Amino acid sequence: MNTQSFRMLTLFDYLDSGNGYKARLLMSHLGLSYRYIEVDILMGQTRTRDFLARNPNGRIPTLQLPDGEHLWESDAILWYLAEGTDFLPDGRLLRAKVLQWMFFEQYSHEPNVATPRFIMRHLPADDPRRAELPQRQARGREALSVMEGHLAVHPWFVAGRYTIADIALYAYTHVAEDGGIALEPYPALRAWLARVRAQPGYVGLLDRPKSI
Amino acid sequence: MNTQSFRMLTLFDYLDSGNGYKARLLMSHLGLSYRYIEVDILMGQTRTRDFLARNPNGRIPTLQLPDGEHLWESDAILWYLAEGTDFLPDGRLLRAKVLQWMFFEQYSHEPNVATPRFIMRHLPADDPRRAELPQRQARGREALSVMEGHLAVHPWFVAGRYTIADIALYAYTHVAEDGGIALEPYPALRAWLARVRAQPGYVGLLDRPKSI
Repeated sequence: MNTQSFRMLTLFDYLDSGNGYKARLLMSHLGLSYRYIEVDILMGQTRTRDFLARNPNGRIPTLQLPDGEHLWESDAILWYLAEGTDFLPDGRLLRAKVLQWMFFEQYSHEPNVATPRFIMRHLPADDPRRAELPQRQARGREALSVMEGHLAVHPWFVAGRYTIADIALYAYTHVAEDGGIALEPYPALRAWLARVRAQPGYVGLLDRPKSI
Repeated sequence: MNTQSFRMLTLFDYLDSGNGYKARLLMSHLGLSYRYIEVDILMGQTRTRDFLARNPNGRIPTLQLPDGEHLWESDAILWYLAEGTDFLPDGRLLRAKVLQWMFFEQYSHEPNVATPRFIMRHLPADDPRRAELPQRQARGREALSVMEGHLAVHPWFVAGRYTIADIALYAYTHVAEDGGIALEPYPALRAWLARVRAQPGYVGLLDRPKSI
């Protein structure tokens, strides 16, 4: 690794990851350039000694900062990058509400919306983990219902505008059908997905970043 | 509900919940008084129409603020209460690192350390969810190993001092053995648990708060 690499942001990521996509989408909105290094999670590349020195929890996304420090957990990366921008509101309660929805995303939503998608896209048809699908999908629908209830009366999750709470929740919601969870029953949620897609600088989940 | 209730903090909680304990422990450190309302999660009291109006995700802890607003998700509550105190450091990267460990707690730790404890303490011996125990306990041990690696070289999780990252991780770690996860293999972690217990204003998980 040359010294140049320490003067920029580097994102260690896997293109099909919605968690990684959160960081890519925000960096695109912000016009940030970064080095993009793909790590093959299916080939165990997050469990090597080198990678564990970057993130001892062995997961992507992991962000390397210009000074060489590493930051992991997708929603912590969003928070770091959004600080001081329009994507993170001011105000003690508004900021806590952004976190409330991001913790909801990681605890109630991601394991039940993202994991079925992973099982259906990446595991063999006879994989024993298929047995997890019905319960996860049912809980995923519950999470989408909580979102639908909020979006029926609010255009965005917090502060009446597009923030990192929306980015965190959009990442796996917009591809929930890949995991067998239909979006048809959630009209307010579908209208919100369209509002996110209309934001300046929007990029898709599988749009490969131009690495610098 | 009388008007008085809107002039103070009210915590809707369940005494045996480590997630609720996070808020109780921080409020004890801060010397905050609050109204404590126990909600019986085993009797479905978080799924009533009244409770869902407070938290549409139907979970405790839920904090009602003096102006009547509600905030939920334990780690968002910690963030809100800690803002402006010594329990949340200044500095963009340090704050993001606090969040990194709190998201690690909710995603990699809590489902694998807290859930086995819940299954073993609250479900019948023949409950089918017992089948989840071996995999969750194995992942819980992985999460504790990540913590052990950090604590072998740092006294606290972030900023060299006791913060809400420690409180978030302490809540279920110190009772991991209730879920069949032995703490003996983690000496640095056990020393950290003792440092937390020695903090001024420390209260235990089952110490019932004096409700005002």
